[in-house]
Amino acid sequence: MYKDASIQDIDSTLSKAWSAFQVFNKISLKDRAHFMRTIAREIEALGDELLMVTGRETNLPEARLRNERARTIFQLNSYADACERGDWLEVRIDTALPDRNPPKPDIRKMMTGIGPVVVFGAANFPYAYSTAGGDTASAFAAGCPVIVKAHPAHPQTSELMATAIHTAVKSCSLPEGVFSHIHGVSFEVGRALVEHPHTRAVGFTGSLAGGKQLFDWANQRSVPIPVFAEMSSINPVFLLPQKMKTDAAAVAAMYASSITLGVGQFCTNPGLIIGLEGNDLQTFIESLSAAIEGIAPGTMLHAGIAENYRVKRTEALAQSGVEMVAVSGTDAGENQGVPTIAKTSAQQFLQNPVLHREVFGPYSLVIACNTMEEMLQVARVMEGQLTATMMATEEDIVTHTSLTEAIMHCCGRFILNSVPTGVEVCMAMQHGGPYPATTDSRFGAVGADAIKRFVRPLAFQNWPDGFLPPPLQNSNPMGIWRMVNDQFTNVII
Amino acid sequence: MYKDASIQDIDSTLSKAWSAFQVFNKISLKDRAHFMRTIAREIEALGDELLMVTGRETNLPEARLRNERARTIFQLNSYADACERGDWLEVRIDTALPDRNPPKPDIRKMMTGIGPVVVFGAANFPYAYSTAGGDTASAFAAGCPVIVKAHPAHPQTSELMATAIHTAVKSCSLPEGVFSHIHGVSFEVGRALVEHPHTRAVGFTGSLAGGKQLFDWANQRSVPIPVFAEMSSINPVFLLPQKMKTDAAAVAAMYASSITLGVGQFCTNPGLIIGLEGNDLQTFIESLSAAIEGIAPGTMLHAGIAENYRVKRTEALAQSGVEMVAVSGTDAGENQGVPTIAKTSAQQFLQNPVLHREVFGPYSLVIACNTMEEMLQVARVMEGQLTATMMATEEDIVTHTSLTEAIMHCCGRFILNSVPTGVEVCMAMQHGGPYPATTDSRFGAVGADAIKRFVRPLAFQNWPDGFLPPPLQNSNPMGIWRMVNDQFTNVII
Repeated sequence: MYKDASIQDIDSTLSKAWSAFQVFNKISLKDRAHFMRTIAREIEALGDELLMVTGRETNLPEARLRNERARTIFQLNSYADACERGDWLEVRIDTALPDRNPPKPDIRKMMTGIGPVVVFGAANFPYAYSTAGGDTASAFAAGCPVIVKAHPAHPQTSELMATAIHTAVKSCSLPEGVFSHIHGVSFEVGRALVEHPHTRAVGFTGSLAGGKQLFDWANQRSVPIPVFAEMSSINPVFLLPQKMKTDAAAVAAMYASSITLGVGQFCTNPGLIIGLEGNDLQTFIESLSAAIEGIAPGTMLHAGIAENYRVKRTEALAQSGVEMVAVSGTDAGENQGVPTIAKTSAQQFLQNPVLHREVFGPYSLVIACNTMEEMLQVARVMEGQLTATMMATEEDIVTHTSLTEAIMHCCGRFILNSVPTGVEVCMAMQHGGPYPATTDSRFGAVGADAIKRFVRPLAFQNWPDGFLPPPLQNSNPMGIWRMVNDQFTNVII
Repeated sequence: MYKDASIQDIDSTLSKAWSAFQVFNKISLKDRAHFMRTIAREIEALGDELLMVTGRETNLPEARLRNERARTIFQLNSYADACERGDWLEVRIDTALPDRNPPKPDIRKMMTGIGPVVVFGAANFPYAYSTAGGDTASAFAAGCPVIVKAHPAHPQTSELMATAIHTAVKSCSLPEGVFSHIHGVSFEVGRALVEHPHTRAVGFTGSLAGGKQLFDWANQRSVPIPVFAEMSSINPVFLLPQKMKTDAAAVAAMYASSITLGVGQFCTNPGLIIGLEGNDLQTFIESLSAAIEGIAPGTMLHAGIAENYRVKRTEALAQSGVEMVAVSGTDAGENQGVPTIAKTSAQQFLQNPVLHREVFGPYSLVIACNTMEEMLQVARVMEGQLTATMMATEEDIVTHTSLTEAIMHCCGRFILNSVPTGVEVCMAMQHGGPYPATTDSRFGAVGADAIKRFVRPLAFQNWPDGFLPPPLQNSNPMGIWRMVNDQFTNVII
């Protein structure tokens, strides 16, 4: 339906983006925030046509799409607030000491946009992690032009969102190159975008294979650039003995919902549940199984994802020592994902890397450990994760400190007595984690700290006040928090 | 003299470091700062023997070594202060809203150490960027154990410094694995250190070839890790016409000193001076030449660096359209670097990539532009730099905004009417820049923000106050600045 961009298209797109960067990176934080809020309004103005188109393209139910649209608008508005608040600028001012020997010069540092950012839309979040989603919002807040490659599974949704952004660019009188939208089903479009000399960073949400490929291309450039790929996470949940003694059934009910939420198509889906073999785990599995059997299969985002689930689920269930303990009581229709729970032993898990891989969909594997020592071993070999969860009483935590410690090291967000699904958009959120959860554990993709992925520090030495960017001027015209001679302050110098 | 570490040594070193990380990452900021201050005192206690040994190993004069030792001690103490101040923790607290629909959970985020850090000592800073230098100090502040590979050009200095750190580890009752010191002349030692699964980050200061090699190894691991390599910078200086009309001779005097400071062996050495062809540039070159002719060659750090300078200088001077305009009037002795100024045209520079390469030593190339448009072209093709400098009046800046803009984009520190040599250790310093100046322009190596290279965000969701790390607890026991529900505050919640 949409034509792939040619190499010439990509080159002219990036050239426009580079020129636009010179302007966009200099406009005031207030104007940048206004632009982001205008996009939010333009998305609202797309009305229900947007929901209809996306529903058709993704099979996602209307209620979910309404929620996700609201979240996308909230992201744009809240990152606009954060943009204006300016703490992401990390302003440091060291004033001159001319009488010191040697004299200390005046040095002032702030973050500045890194340059044009290429964003690859996500299949599972057609709004919140696609065209006008979190990566785009944080790049705009940072002062970086954005080039979006539409996700081939929802190109029309992407077109509509792009229209909203283009309209905002126009109504805010920004250079056209601040935002570009291109299509590309072929491998070569992605590669050309990552390899273009004007591209300065990449945002991606998707598979491990896809993210790793972009990461490799980016690092093999003559000038390497950062790639923020959010990729693969199985979000382990550790069930501690004291907690399970009293709450096994309640925990099971909570997790039956979390595992099947959105047909399991969330990056925070709990794909691994680690418990101690015994009656309490048996109770947990029975309750979980009863719930899962009663949950009907749901239609997945697109045929490719459904097929991928079918293949990965079959492969996982075929592994030695893995038994299926529960499956939905309803037969799956075309492109539907069938809720499934499997079980294996800690020893099997420790030996078989296939069991560590993500099965993207409504699937979870229970690992039965014979001892708490085995549970600790499982925690210690765990790959990097977006989240890890402990279901535990305070006594459990105090008793098993090494386990708590080991779990903490593998994840970006450490949850107690709750579920990993449901990612709050707020400053304290960390949506990121050690590899392979992401390519760079030092940053996150949700909450306004995501802006920090697309900036670099720039220091000015010995410049007169009037020539400095406003955030560095003595009068602190925007009233932002700054570190002045090692002290935090939001007043003038 | 010292034996290369074996693969077995490296494996046991990293295993010890990994165990030590579990403890060291948890100790209080106060204890961590105390440890760093103890190292500083132990370095002082090494007394003049240290200076003697280093003088012999590096040919650096005593006054310089005294200064560098003082700087190294200052770094340890000031990063210890920053460690305790805790703003690098970037604490974000979003308190729960149980009545919201859906309820908002309590989420609290802080930075935590990334894990064991391998530091490769620098040849040109035997104290400040080697064993107990800036990388080591910032990794310790972050809660990361450090493994130093001694620079083969000053192994005995490195041994003495390591002794000081080992003594501090002991007297602070920290696990032995918090610090390890190994030797390795062979390629394979460096590779094994970077590729070990327990290594979580790498700090390096040195050549482009060396840094790029570490970067590639790190990215090709099954779990890639960040490399902070500070590599190649020629620190361009742009001479603007108005400024040169009145100050050509004074600017020349300033730069004759900067180019030859420390036999040109600073990463901020000004290797490129860009001016507008004409009488003022002629005056500048004549004054600079007169000064350079009067500066005697100095002995370089070691034979390899001296030989490298000889080769690179010869190669640069042999390029088509390059003429030597000044050379020291004194003949060079063994391993000495001879102060040299060459000149070429903007067109030659634009065409010949060899002229963009660093000639590490007391060498600078003057580029004569026929027009300001040519100067802009030169600025626009400039590779990434640690610093860029403008010698300009306010009128120059106002007149040449595109030029100012272009220069700003290539560097980490933008200096006006001063010299790039002399790197102040303070919060506002940025010692880093776009590739190839460093492998990651988003971080810097000087000033306490260098701590941020070795941390990652970790969020805690739904944990009771008493189980949170102290920086996240309601009572704010350390009185640090935190962002609580989007507001900066240093009080309790």
